[in-house]
Amino acid sequence: MAIKIGILGYGNLAKGIECAIKQNDDMELVAVFTRRAPESVKVWSGVPVYSVDELENKKNEIDVLMLCGGSATDLPEQTPKYAKFFNVVDSFDTHARIPEHFANVDAAAKAAGKVAMISVGWDPGMFSLNRLYANAILRDGNDYTFWGKGVSQGHSDAIRRIKGVKNAKQYTIPVDAALASVRACENPELTTRQKHTRECFVVAEEGADLAKIENEIKTMPNYFADYDTTVHFITEEELLRDHAGIPHGGFVLRTGKTGREGEHNHVIEYSLKLDSNPEFTACVLVAYARAAYRMNQRGITGCKTVFDVAPADLSPLSGEEMRAHLL
Amino acid sequence: MAIKIGILGYGNLAKGIECAIKQNDDMELVAVFTRRAPESVKVWSGVPVYSVDELENKKNEIDVLMLCGGSATDLPEQTPKYAKFFNVVDSFDTHARIPEHFANVDAAAKAAGKVAMISVGWDPGMFSLNRLYANAILRDGNDYTFWGKGVSQGHSDAIRRIKGVKNAKQYTIPVDAALASVRACENPELTTRQKHTRECFVVAEEGADLAKIENEIKTMPNYFADYDTTVHFITEEELLRDHAGIPHGGFVLRTGKTGREGEHNHVIEYSLKLDSNPEFTACVLVAYARAAYRMNQRGITGCKTVFDVAPADLSPLSGEEMRAHLL
Repeated sequence: MAIKIGILGYGNLAKGIECAIKQNDDMELVAVFTRRAPESVKVWSGVPVYSVDELENKKNEIDVLMLCGGSATDLPEQTPKYAKFFNVVDSFDTHARIPEHFANVDAAAKAAGKVAMISVGWDPGMFSLNRLYANAILRDGNDYTFWGKGVSQGHSDAIRRIKGVKNAKQYTIPVDAALASVRACENPELTTRQKHTRECFVVAEEGADLAKIENEIKTMPNYFADYDTTVHFITEEELLRDHAGIPHGGFVLRTGKTGREGEHNHVIEYSLKLDSNPEFTACVLVAYARAAYRMNQRGITGCKTVFDVAPADLSPLSGEEMRAHLL
Repeated sequence: MAIKIGILGYGNLAKGIECAIKQNDDMELVAVFTRRAPESVKVWSGVPVYSVDELENKKNEIDVLMLCGGSATDLPEQTPKYAKFFNVVDSFDTHARIPEHFANVDAAAKAAGKVAMISVGWDPGMFSLNRLYANAILRDGNDYTFWGKGVSQGHSDAIRRIKGVKNAKQYTIPVDAALASVRACENPELTTRQKHTRECFVVAEEGADLAKIENEIKTMPNYFADYDTTVHFITEEELLRDHAGIPHGGFVLRTGKTGREGEHNHVIEYSLKLDSNPEFTACVLVAYARAAYRMNQRGITGCKTVFDVAPADLSPLSGEEMRAHLL
């Protein structure tokens, strides 16, 4: 019997989940739920589309509900709300507000006897896991996380809000020299500027003052002022042709010392190079949906993160198969 | 109350565990057990040394026993034997015999109400975990594991058995071009020769036939014949000066496709660069000792692998601390 999955929302992440489920024989997408008019939403896989108002009526038809809203306003409301009816998985990624989100979701999920898996994806998610494993192993050491090369939606949006800008795409790029220093166990203390550069591809309105736009970008507080930023003005055609993708990725490193005198250095490195940020994130969510379902079947309830999930629960393989082929 | 650790054996791995425990405030080494005459074993940390025959008498004084024997003959006997009295951790690394070892240990640990954590380290261990996570996420893809640059004890021993060889050290080295092809998502099918090269540093007896030794190494079945092998003859002084360490490491990669037409490629890469193979392995074992103790405190029993352990159980941090600082 396949695990029955529902999706709330139909943006890039939801579309990625739709594709990921097709790669997993033990899962089945049963419906998409939307806040829009259901008849206006055409879904690739052809599953039924229902109004979000129908969700509670479908609680016996769905094993795990994937919440594909945003972290700013959607998930803080949706995850506790739907954990009352479903095992849920979300990708809540506002790091500073995770403790508060956890508490709200935990209360709802425990009361309902459900598992609610929050902050799943790659950061938070796989990067967090790698920070935890590496810290548990190398107790005397330093952590480093680099992001990119990849598209930052927030920074791209910030550029688009500048007067005279028609469209824009911003790439976050790790600085090679900083990565090299970390890998060489030099334990550098890195400033914001030393870790990442920012590269912007900007389509200006006709007649706009390019020098003024460039200056506004480079001096924008929080977003760009603390970074070495490069601005390229290109045409709309070039933007669509060369910068249509949503790639991302990054590096998590921990270096640490062992031995009687701390005489031995070690480097643990995890990296991702992703053609599609939302599709990869979706794959992680689907694996954790399997775990949420299995854990709830064993009587586990409450809010969980990637830290609480035994790796075996993510895999469709049996224990015997895993030990024989992956261990 | 610190977790009380015992160690059986006092070779390189045990010495690494002794150092690793010093880095963990919540753990305490209480004794070393040996098959040698206890008074002949001087331990760095100064804890008591007992005969292995004393082990069963100490069962109430030790929370987790670390088994530091070899996989060929020690652990198949020791792990089931001592799982009858202790939570145990071993580094059993004969991949092909893991299912059999698991079955034997599971029966003993379940009957005794203990947790027995087997095949802990980095391969099997952290590399296995990364294979499992990456396979659960990227369902349509390919796995690659490369080892090195590092010292292979088995290959060094094989060279030492050749007539005319006084001493030797062998390094396993991944082929850069193969790694580059994997990272580029070319999904290469790699032969043994294409994945790794072998570099040997050999001290010959006086008057030995160097050409004959070199030929014997390069044509040795299983060990060297399938690889491009380089042999350097050096002096004993050079060997001790330049090749005294036990470095190792390697790379686990999975590449896979997502999207409606499999149009997006992704690369997940995990790598280790270790100055001391046994000391790093020891750090992993100590983290899993913490998990074995905690799981047993919760009433869990039986044989477990890294696949069965929720990451949170490895960390000395509380759930709140982990979510606030690592997620």
